[in-house]
Amino acid sequence: MFGLISRPDTVQRDTLQNIINTKEYTLNFIKAEHYKKAHQTSARYDIGISEFEKAGFDEIYLPGCHAPFVKDAVVKIAMKLEECIPITLNDTILMIGSVMQIELDDKMLNEDGFVNLTSSEALISQGLDAYFTSQEIGRLPYAKP
Amino acid sequence: MFGLISRPDTVQRDTLQNIINTKEYTLNFIKAEHYKKAHQTSARYDIGISEFEKAGFDEIYLPGCHAPFVKDAVVKIAMKLEECIPITLNDTILMIGSVMQIELDDKMLNEDGFVNLTSSEALISQGLDAYFTSQEIGRLPYAKP
Repeated sequence: MFGLISRPDTVQRDTLQNIINTKEYTLNFIKAEHYKKAHQTSARYDIGISEFEKAGFDEIYLPGCHAPFVKDAVVKIAMKLEECIPITLNDTILMIGSVMQIELDDKMLNEDGFVNLTSSEALISQGLDAYFTSQEIGRLPYAKP
Repeated sequence: MFGLISRPDTVQRDTLQNIINTKEYTLNFIKAEHYKKAHQTSARYDIGISEFEKAGFDEIYLPGCHAPFVKDAVVKIAMKLEECIPITLNDTILMIGSVMQIELDDKMLNEDGFVNLTSSEALISQGLDAYFTSQEIGRLPYAKP
């Protein structure tokens, strides 16, 4: 399983350099009620400053991953950096990582492996500044002609 | 403005080949009430079959783009294919397109350019088979340390 993130390469980005150096990073799904803290982690802090701490999130370390997780995250994903692809068209870098480990509450996991993000009030964002919760409509079977 | 889509290159994908041939495609934001039709467009139809038509969507063509739009889409985006980047790690192709034109109802557009997708009941998906609507929590100002 792979995850994609793209980051501008034209401004100082300590998060990007940190991931390239350590080859590990985490993805954290935040509860909607913490949206202000989540937004605050986007501020441009100086090198060596933990944006988790500054935003008011507690960090936690889990076995098998050197990067910190957000303690209160409803889904915690440990990622290993596999490849960085420069996208010259818009001066960004595409980071491709593989999933090493996922931690979540058993109650969120359906029998078929579906992760119920709505019931855990996971935060959704649009653009860089708008935040939402989701309401489930339904799931559909594999579509055939 | 750029948009990213990745597609498997190991199975027959007429949509991908069609975009490579014509260099144009459209992105269509669907109303939540049409989620069953939207899902049906993912079925693997034979070459030459319009998945819009088979799913029950009416097509519409707009000036400046040769690819069809979904008539009832609340946001219609005309895209020009700029680059295809093969991602060998998981046998997918990353398509990068530039936005040629966006059509939406003036009522969806805030004064600062923000597009209100919640009020127009735009459909959200998770994975390949789960569908949601969104409820707005709020927007936040640019975060500073």
